[in-house]
Amino acid sequence: MKYCSNCAAELHIAIPEGDNLPRHICRQCDTIHYQNPKIIAGCLPVYEDKVLLCRRAIEPRLGFWTLPAGFMENNESTEQAALRETREEANAEVRILSLFTLTSIVHVNQVQLIYLAQMDKPEYSISSESLEVALFSENEIPWDDLAFHTIKNALTHYFEDRKQGVFPLHQFELHGTQYTRP
Amino acid sequence: MKYCSNCAAELHIAIPEGDNLPRHICRQCDTIHYQNPKIIAGCLPVYEDKVLLCRRAIEPRLGFWTLPAGFMENNESTEQAALRETREEANAEVRILSLFTLTSIVHVNQVQLIYLAQMDKPEYSISSESLEVALFSENEIPWDDLAFHTIKNALTHYFEDRKQGVFPLHQFELHGTQYTRP
Repeated sequence: MKYCSNCAAELHIAIPEGDNLPRHICRQCDTIHYQNPKIIAGCLPVYEDKVLLCRRAIEPRLGFWTLPAGFMENNESTEQAALRETREEANAEVRILSLFTLTSIVHVNQVQLIYLAQMDKPEYSISSESLEVALFSENEIPWDDLAFHTIKNALTHYFEDRKQGVFPLHQFELHGTQYTRP
Repeated sequence: MKYCSNCAAELHIAIPEGDNLPRHICRQCDTIHYQNPKIIAGCLPVYEDKVLLCRRAIEPRLGFWTLPAGFMENNESTEQAALRETREEANAEVRILSLFTLTSIVHVNQVQLIYLAQMDKPEYSISSESLEVALFSENEIPWDDLAFHTIKNALTHYFEDRKQGVFPLHQFELHGTQYTRP
């Protein structure tokens, strides 16, 4: 961020009066440009004893497997974002059951919400974002070819929880590759 | 958003290739400037049978009562944001017990997370953001002078849940003043 998106003047970095963090400030139009974490919303879609995964057609982690998830847009709720991403990446319609993981991915300024979701029919297909889309039973999950730590973590907890048949919300802070429970 | 924060050229609004929503695009340096929802994190601090509220010293809703909460910053987790806001607005140290409400405030592109939190000591004070800070029992809550619908909603559910002694996560979508449960 080098120039003011409001007036095009060069930005300066300084701590505004009454604040305690450095911000991008425009001295021409007095706008303060804040930068905040973004939300990633997605689903862990379940059909019978299988989980739906997508093989990424786009960077980052092209070719690796992931749950359908992506950046939440303006003018939608977190659940709408999770359903939209599942439609866009897997052409699948699901019903959200519950919020399953909430992970602050601190080093990249993201907060990831993964919803446990029910697939009523095994209907899905590839898209511009997914090279392959497929249902996997627990012993078929491509653990070594998963795209992200957070996805491996969500799947691990899902299969653990399934043994008990209860799916509580799991909350994590991820700093680099180090998970902590807040 | 009128000018490119990367190169200062005038921005255009168009749907990028492979996308399906209009974005602010720079035709000079090819940067796409996305706009996404922001996270508000805060606490519902409880000391014995009372709840800690702050009377806002800043707009919006100056003079009205609220729970300590504010915009999540980069380089912190949602829990760290909630604790920081509680320190900044009420000079109070609390222990987070659980995530209590998750509300998509769709019309303003915010997602609000309120954590139930324990105060071990009744220690708090005013700050540059709070004209007053005080503990309220249920029958003392200034219901008509609360700053935001979401805060009234969180407090209402807290006192309801307290009768049963269980505090599940409550999830909402708020469109204008209309709550729905996703």
